Amino acid sequence: MKHTLLLAFIALCCAFAKAQTVSSPNGAVQLTFSLDGTRPQYSVNYKGKAVVLPSHLGLELARDKHASRGMEEQDLMDGFEVAGSETSTFDETWEPVWGETRTIRNHYNELAVTLRQQVPYNPRTIIIRFRVYDDGVGFRYEFPAQPELVYFLIQDERTEFRMAGDHTAWWLPGDYDTQEQATQESRLSEIRSRFHDAVNWGNSSVAVFSETGVQTSLQMRTDDGLYINLHEAACIDYATMHLELVDNQTTALTTQLAGTSNAYTPNPAASRYPLPAPMTFISHLTPDATGLKGAMQTPCQSPWRTIIVSDDARDMLSSNLILNLNEPCALDDVSWIHPTKYCGVWWEMIVGKSNWHYTDDQPSVKLSTFNYQQSTPHGRHAANNEKVRRYIDFAAANGLDQVLVEGWNVGWEDWANMWKRDVFDFVTPYPDFDIEALNQYAHSKGVKLMMHHETSSSTQNYERHMEEAYQLMNRYGYDAVKSGYVGDIIPRGDHHYSQSMNNHYLYCIQEAAKHHIMVNAHEAVRPTGLCRTYPNLVGNESARGTEYEAFGGSNPDHTCILPFTRLQGGPMDYTPGILETQLSTWSQNTSYVHTTVCGQLALYVTMYSPLQMAADLPEHYEREDLAPAFQFIRDVAVDWDDSRYLEAEPADYITVARKAKGTDNWFIGGKCDENPRTAIVKLDFLDPGAKYDCTIYTDAKNAHYRDNPKAYTITHRTVRRTDTLKIKEAAGGGFAVSLKKVQ
Amino acid sequence: MKHTLLLAFIALCCAFAKAQTVSSPNGAVQLTFSLDGTRPQYSVNYKGKAVVLPSHLGLELARDKHASRGMEEQDLMDGFEVAGSETSTFDETWEPVWGETRTIRNHYNELAVTLRQQVPYNPRTIIIRFRVYDDGVGFRYEFPAQPELVYFLIQDERTEFRMAGDHTAWWLPGDYDTQEQATQESRLSEIRSRFHDAVNWGNSSVAVFSETGVQTSLQMRTDDGLYINLHEAACIDYATMHLELVDNQTTALTTQLAGTSNAYTPNPAASRYPLPAPMTFISHLTPDATGLKGAMQTPCQSPWRTIIVSDDARDMLSSNLILNLNEPCALDDVSWIHPTKYCGVWWEMIVGKSNWHYTDDQPSVKLSTFNYQQSTPHGRHAANNEKVRRYIDFAAANGLDQVLVEGWNVGWEDWANMWKRDVFDFVTPYPDFDIEALNQYAHSKGVKLMMHHETSSSTQNYERHMEEAYQLMNRYGYDAVKSGYVGDIIPRGDHHYSQSMNNHYLYCIQEAAKHHIMVNAHEAVRPTGLCRTYPNLVGNESARGTEYEAFGGSNPDHTCILPFTRLQGGPMDYTPGILETQLSTWSQNTSYVHTTVCGQLALYVTMYSPLQMAADLPEHYEREDLAPAFQFIRDVAVDWDDSRYLEAEPADYITVARKAKGTDNWFIGGKCDENPRTAIVKLDFLDPGAKYDCTIYTDAKNAHYRDNPKAYTITHRTVRRTDTLKIKEAAGGGFAVSLKKVQ
Repeated sequence: MKHTLLLAFIALCCAFAKAQTVSSPNGAVQLTFSLDGTRPQYSVNYKGKAVVLPSHLGLELARDKHASRGMEEQDLMDGFEVAGSETSTFDETWEPVWGETRTIRNHYNELAVTLRQQVPYNPRTIIIRFRVYDDGVGFRYEFPAQPELVYFLIQDERTEFRMAGDHTAWWLPGDYDTQEQATQESRLSEIRSRFHDAVNWGNSSVAVFSETGVQTSLQMRTDDGLYINLHEAACIDYATMHLELVDNQTTALTTQLAGTSNAYTPNPAASRYPLPAPMTFISHLTPDATGLKGAMQTPCQSPWRTIIVSDDARDMLSSNLILNLNEPCALDDVSWIHPTKYCGVWWEMIVGKSNWHYTDDQPSVKLSTFNYQQSTPHGRHAANNEKVRRYIDFAAANGLDQVLVEGWNVGWEDWANMWKRDVFDFVTPYPDFDIEALNQYAHSKGVKLMMHHETSSSTQNYERHMEEAYQLMNRYGYDAVKSGYVGDIIPRGDHHYSQSMNNHYLYCIQEAAKHHIMVNAHEAVRPTGLCRTYPNLVGNESARGTEYEAFGGSNPDHTCILPFTRLQGGPMDYTPGILETQLSTWSQNTSYVHTTVCGQLALYVTMYSPLQMAADLPEHYEREDLAPAFQFIRDVAVDWDDSRYLEAEPADYITVARKAKGTDNWFIGGKCDENPRTAIVKLDFLDPGAKYDCTIYTDAKNAHYRDNPKAYTITHRTVRRTDTLKIKEAAGGGFAVSLKKVQ
Repeated sequence: MKHTLLLAFIALCCAFAKAQTVSSPNGAVQLTFSLDGTRPQYSVNYKGKAVVLPSHLGLELARDKHASRGMEEQDLMDGFEVAGSETSTFDETWEPVWGETRTIRNHYNELAVTLRQQVPYNPRTIIIRFRVYDDGVGFRYEFPAQPELVYFLIQDERTEFRMAGDHTAWWLPGDYDTQEQATQESRLSEIRSRFHDAVNWGNSSVAVFSETGVQTSLQMRTDDGLYINLHEAACIDYATMHLELVDNQTTALTTQLAGTSNAYTPNPAASRYPLPAPMTFISHLTPDATGLKGAMQTPCQSPWRTIIVSDDARDMLSSNLILNLNEPCALDDVSWIHPTKYCGVWWEMIVGKSNWHYTDDQPSVKLSTFNYQQSTPHGRHAANNEKVRRYIDFAAANGLDQVLVEGWNVGWEDWANMWKRDVFDFVTPYPDFDIEALNQYAHSKGVKLMMHHETSSSTQNYERHMEEAYQLMNRYGYDAVKSGYVGDIIPRGDHHYSQSMNNHYLYCIQEAAKHHIMVNAHEAVRPTGLCRTYPNLVGNESARGTEYEAFGGSNPDHTCILPFTRLQGGPMDYTPGILETQLSTWSQNTSYVHTTVCGQLALYVTMYSPLQMAADLPEHYEREDLAPAFQFIRDVAVDWDDSRYLEAEPADYITVARKAKGTDNWFIGGKCDENPRTAIVKLDFLDPGAKYDCTIYTDAKNAHYRDNPKAYTITHRTVRRTDTLKIKEAAGGGFAVSLKKVQ
């Protein structure tokens, strides 16, 4: 009897062990799961073409000194059998609080495979859940609560993405502490040789880990015309994933198990797993100070690993796969969350004309003892009452909602990278910043000030002051904060994208929500769609922003790749709108912005964000030559009912039309790289029969981002849906169009 | 002209470079400072005998990746010249908020040596400040603000204490994470061979670093009759010091510069410094997760390094040197701070009869999702309404001020050492603990509940909840908290006694003071006299407490050494009063308390603390055989106007008489080790002419801590100052005396 049952059981397992394939609703995407011996593997096809060749899934666990007390250490790599699987279909349409479209459809077919692994005493189980969309696949590991898997430490996740060829990739060096690099375009096989020069060694915090380590979101193009994007969704209480490419020179994967104080030793079993074939990416998580990648308590799960795929580059930009894989909104009341257009006391400091700090009296200050009232101001402190009033007046006059003020609070005399813990208190203004009067003045003009919290990456210090800082914001009427994480993380040894730091960023967002505060975190982890669940996360930097135009400049194609990569996880506070592109005309800075004026205007449409800055100085916007262009920044919406990607090619060009929320008006932006081109804009998305007043901001004939950036033309005409606009974009240029429906 | 000046300057330096000697006010202690070439050194004599032979002073700095941005890296070890020195005298008498005596005299002669070191560009200076007392020396490094020394990282402090012989020492293994070991008594030369067996490997967090590493306070005795104690005072924003002994087998000092992420590399210059002679202790600081020992910003200073010395062991116990080296009280209002006698729901859980946790439904819980209301109680949860009321009644009936309740809050199902961050929230009671009703009931009886915050060493989690937790305490009328730090520190890689953790403990004390809350932190860093500055730090554990009597027992001499070592830095919440010493009489626990009943009573006097627990169960205190002994615990004071150490020898015996605060009554305690003895108590401290009702609690003739611990005798008589009591103490026994002045 026993034998019969056992045989039946084995038969069942064998049945399950056969490959299982799930297709997307329209059949374009196919996901196949199977066991390779006892190791789980998957593959992805798109319209019959290989996107991911059979690739292994699993996690290596770390041996902890507390193993004897219940910490599991047997890897979750092999020894698996399929214990069951379920398929299902989901189709729902939901409304984001803000976004590119009024509604978003979440439509997928799901396969959830339950895997059973024999360990001493009892078997343990994990679930790998795949969701197959028409534009790609998301999958994650789920760890149910069970006696044999209560706690475990991740040595590293070993999720493989085996590519079908030596694709063209747009990549950034994988780094535990910065995301502010210029994008590289190369074949996969060229990553290693180009790696060193691709690192932003001058950043305030740099920690690369492998010469073939790249960050996500990673955009690729295959020779047979597929666009493939690898990233992650819903990274919560988990370390951020990088990808390490196995190429022809790889002999071993990078490990970062440093093992201070003998807390950890690498699991000897790790060497049992052979290297995958060249052109395979392997997940590489961000470690904590001890080299460990994560501490887990069941029930729990990994973030979703995402593969977006299409044969049309525009689908990369319109994909909602990552948002859809995040949980629905967790906030009961979202009435206080609103898209925001703002200006601020910022660019003149970035450029170097004025300073965040107040005095040069001492080489360093200690907040607990330094007396600012008795110190000598150096006279270049930008966040002073007079200047802030000037910005408030400007915002009020031009329909901008808020005014960011950086450098308003004490502590800027010496801050990042000195391992200084108590660097800011987030509540004490400099003597020349009257926080009460300035907020009153702003409110009297219908404008809000925007708070700024530079943490200097001293997270313990920030958390100690956070509640009081948020209360101060509530007291004076701030409802949005730009936070910053410049420099190495304190506590020392931690990294910007570790499990603990990702938890910190989310903690800040959750605590802010309790105070009805919107968050825009700079130098924080790149987003993974969490703004669906926490829509008060209205922005992040997490990439090379406009500030680099003052640090030597960014490549003209920079903003033509960001929407394919950085923006996959959520909006970026890119801070466009630098219309005086030549900084030397008003400062000692010899850098120049690597776009034309119209290129800057285009960014308000091509770089989707509910938070858009008019980043240049008021006096520039008011200048006779630039004021006409600034009109577009005044007019452009920051929230949308619809978006249509009309033209797109990674790092080459993007043309998009968006319908302003709650109106019949459209705005179109087009941005190109260093090569001039002509955009073809078919207006067939307009309402049938309707007429539209159309204003077109275009590069002048002889415009060029380097030599003649401020030459532009504004034309007005009336258009209908049957019209097609042909618009020339200069080198590093672009265009902007506003379309107002004639009633 | 230039040459003349230079020569004059050199002459001046040479003059300073000669040895400088400062004596204590009564001349008994002599401190000599000089330069050994360009390295600072000092020595200490006591009545002509060498206490510390010439020993070097200095710090090795770490090379940081931010060195180029202003982080100093040249060691502060050599290259010094004496730039100046100042001597001064100080004599002041101050009143502690609570203590062993009503007033404390702070009387010393001081030598402050300014040392100049040539570095590129400009010289830099440090100050070494010595304070010479009649009972020892304290000295520290001071780092003034200066252009060439703004920030620096400590690779290790290299303060040497060269002993004059192979002394007898009472030592604990130096450990970054636990202080709960049994004291070892051996020659210095025997430390290495005995080290391994001395480690408390079973502790919840263990991190030893060297086979000759010991912790302070370290008590020694020389063959020629000197008692020497090495410790530190005022350890603030600095890592706790251990001592590494250079013995005949030492070939190199232990270094702990782990260097995760290549953040740090050992300073190559470190190898330049030769090993000191054998029998020299070298300071060894507690590292952070990266192996670094401290991040400093000038102006700043090290803690005081203390050397207490006498030829009379009793002077070790009456010394106030460490308190005197701390800053005066930093709190404006101390009216809310009060000595406290308490009982609590604790011992029955330690013994194993009941539990802190509530349910066994799940192998682990997550506070965010677990529903305690719907879980099944296992029935052994001690902190329930009925039991707590019982304790409140008992406290009220017996004059105890407070009732500690451990296990009142959710989260105890799984806590330490699982790397679980959000382990407690410090505000949510278990379903069977009615926090409002119980506090009301207690207050109606004139009793307060005492709060308990087990942090599980997840410090980030504790800090996130601290303000709300303190507010909860204020709301319900708690004014004292026992906190705990069981298990490895989260964030992972940090240690219990690092700079960051020491900062955390002080942060808790400072935040508690804002809420008028007294703190008694267990498993926190050993104290260094900070209770002078923050008298709301009313206690610490920080050593092997009474709980170990339920974990196999402590040696009978344990409490005869603790006052010489652990108590030097501040009071210990030792939780004495276990009158039912044989645990098997009421539980499954086969351990027994290694003292007699009278030995337990003695501890209320010999182990000074403003916080004293009656730790046994109410039903034991109410038992006919034990109630008479309990009367002493009811009577004994917890705050004192005067203290007289009558007899003392480390690890052998201690006899002390104390005058109860604001009264004419005295209490005497005597405690011996495993050897029976007769205490000779001359009552010459009593008021001339006065008579006193004297109650003496003594071991019965045949009493023995192991075989007959509960045999005791109570006698009453009248005494005067001319009387002498001769009291026999049994093996592991002791005695207690109360003296009430007859009006």
